[in-house]
Amino acid sequence: MPRYKLVVEYDGTPYVGWQFQAVGRSVQQAIEEAILKFSGEALRIQAAGRTDAGVHATHQVVHVDLAKEWRPDTVRDAINAHLKPEPVAVLAATRVGDDFSARMSAIKRHYLFRIVNRRPPVALDANRVWQVHWPLDAEAMHDAAQVLVGKHDFSTFRAAECQAASPVKTLDRLDVERIGDEIRLFASARSFLHHQVRSIAGSLAHVGSGKWTRDDLRAALESRDRARCGPMAPPSGLYLIGVDYRA
Amino acid sequence: MPRYKLVVEYDGTPYVGWQFQAVGRSVQQAIEEAILKFSGEALRIQAAGRTDAGVHATHQVVHVDLAKEWRPDTVRDAINAHLKPEPVAVLAATRVGDDFSARMSAIKRHYLFRIVNRRPPVALDANRVWQVHWPLDAEAMHDAAQVLVGKHDFSTFRAAECQAASPVKTLDRLDVERIGDEIRLFASARSFLHHQVRSIAGSLAHVGSGKWTRDDLRAALESRDRARCGPMAPPSGLYLIGVDYRA
Repeated sequence: MPRYKLVVEYDGTPYVGWQFQAVGRSVQQAIEEAILKFSGEALRIQAAGRTDAGVHATHQVVHVDLAKEWRPDTVRDAINAHLKPEPVAVLAATRVGDDFSARMSAIKRHYLFRIVNRRPPVALDANRVWQVHWPLDAEAMHDAAQVLVGKHDFSTFRAAECQAASPVKTLDRLDVERIGDEIRLFASARSFLHHQVRSIAGSLAHVGSGKWTRDDLRAALESRDRARCGPMAPPSGLYLIGVDYRA
Repeated sequence: MPRYKLVVEYDGTPYVGWQFQAVGRSVQQAIEEAILKFSGEALRIQAAGRTDAGVHATHQVVHVDLAKEWRPDTVRDAINAHLKPEPVAVLAATRVGDDFSARMSAIKRHYLFRIVNRRPPVALDANRVWQVHWPLDAEAMHDAAQVLVGKHDFSTFRAAECQAASPVKTLDRLDVERIGDEIRLFASARSFLHHQVRSIAGSLAHVGSGKWTRDDLRAALESRDRARCGPMAPPSGLYLIGVDYRA
C-alpha cells in the first residue's frame, strides 16, 4: 500500500490532544475521519509527537497508508476539504517508502513555548500563549537553561504517566529569547518525555522571576525528583514546530 | 476632569467594529461598559482609528475623562477586570492634559495587513489573516506599492461611505515583505480614508498575482475612480499597530 507523509498544522485548543481518546475529540480522530470520507478507508494514523490537550502544531508529521496510489497534492487537498471547518490543515503530502515511520524515523523534534510577559490580559493571542504577569528575566532563563542541555536523567521534568522506557534524554537545544513582551523558548531533542517541555518552561519561569538561581535548577535536575519540578506551564503556549528525518 | 490616554489591544472578530452601532456589539461599547462598572460614569470615548468589523488592534489609542483622579495603573487594571472575558485589553493608561485628543492629536497612524499566501487552509491564524491561495510576488507588490507613497488623491481606494472632507492623503510608508508563506504590508500616514488600506491590499494582490503591472496600479490611482480599485481585502488581515503623537 502506498505510504504518504503528511505535515499537519492545528490549533490544539478544542481537542483532547493528538491521540484518540474514548471521550472527547482528538486531532487524530479529526484527520482519520477526513481520510475515511475521502478514501473510504477506516484506519489508524501515527504521528511524530503525541501533543497534549491544548498544545498546538505548526509542523506535526503523520504517515498514512492508502489502498490506492494518488497524486500527493490530491491527498493533501482532499483531506483538507473533508477537515473543514476544523482548525486542522494538511500543509504538505509526499509519497514515502514503506520504511518511513512518522514516529520511529524521526531524528529530531523541535518545540516552541511562547510566554507573554505582561500584566494586562492577552486579547489577540488568547489560547496561544502562557501569560505570566510578573516580570521575567529572559537572559537569566537562557543562561540557566544551558544547565539542561546535553544528556541527562530528566525524571524531575517527567509526567508521572510518562511511558518512555528511560528518563534519560539528550536535549540538543534550549534557547530563551525575548522579543518585546514575548519570551520564546526553543527546545530540540531526538525525543522528549511526557510533559518535559512544559515542566522545563515552568521551572525556567521560576528562574526568570528570581525565585530560583541557575544552581537551583541544576539541583532540581540532579535530584531526579518530580516533586522538585517547578509548576508545569499550561499547554496553550506550546507548539510542535518541526520534525527532522534522515535525508 | 482628569483625562487618561489608553492604549488598547483587541481581537476584532466578534465585534461590529470600533464604533458604537445601534445593532451589534462594538469594541467602544465593551470599553464604555467596563468604565461604567468601574467608575459609575456613563460616557462616550473617542479613538484614534475607527476600525471596521473584524479589524484588529495591537495599539489603538483612546482618551477618556473621569470624574476622579486615579492612579493610571488603577484605571488600566480596573477596566481590564471589568472587560473580562471580552478579547479587549487596556495595555497602558497614562494621565494626559486636556488638550490631548486620541483622534485629533494623532500625527501618524500605522497599520499592518497580513496575508497568508498558500494553498492549504489556515488552522492557527484563522480570523487573523487574509488567505490568498494563488502565488503572490511580494517583491513586485512592494515595487508597485511605491507608486502610492506620497500625496495623492486616493478616490480609487476610498469607500463610498467615507466621510473624510478630502480624498487627498499623504501615504508616508507602504512596504511589502515576505516572511515564509506570510506577506506583510505596512502602511503609515497621518490619516487614512475609509477602507483605504484594505482597498490597497486587494489592489496590490492583483499586482502580486501578475494580473496588474505597476503601471496598471498607477493608472488605477490616477483614474480617481472607485470602480478601478481591485477587490477589497477582508478585514481579518488588518491590524491597527500604532498611533504617534507629538512628544
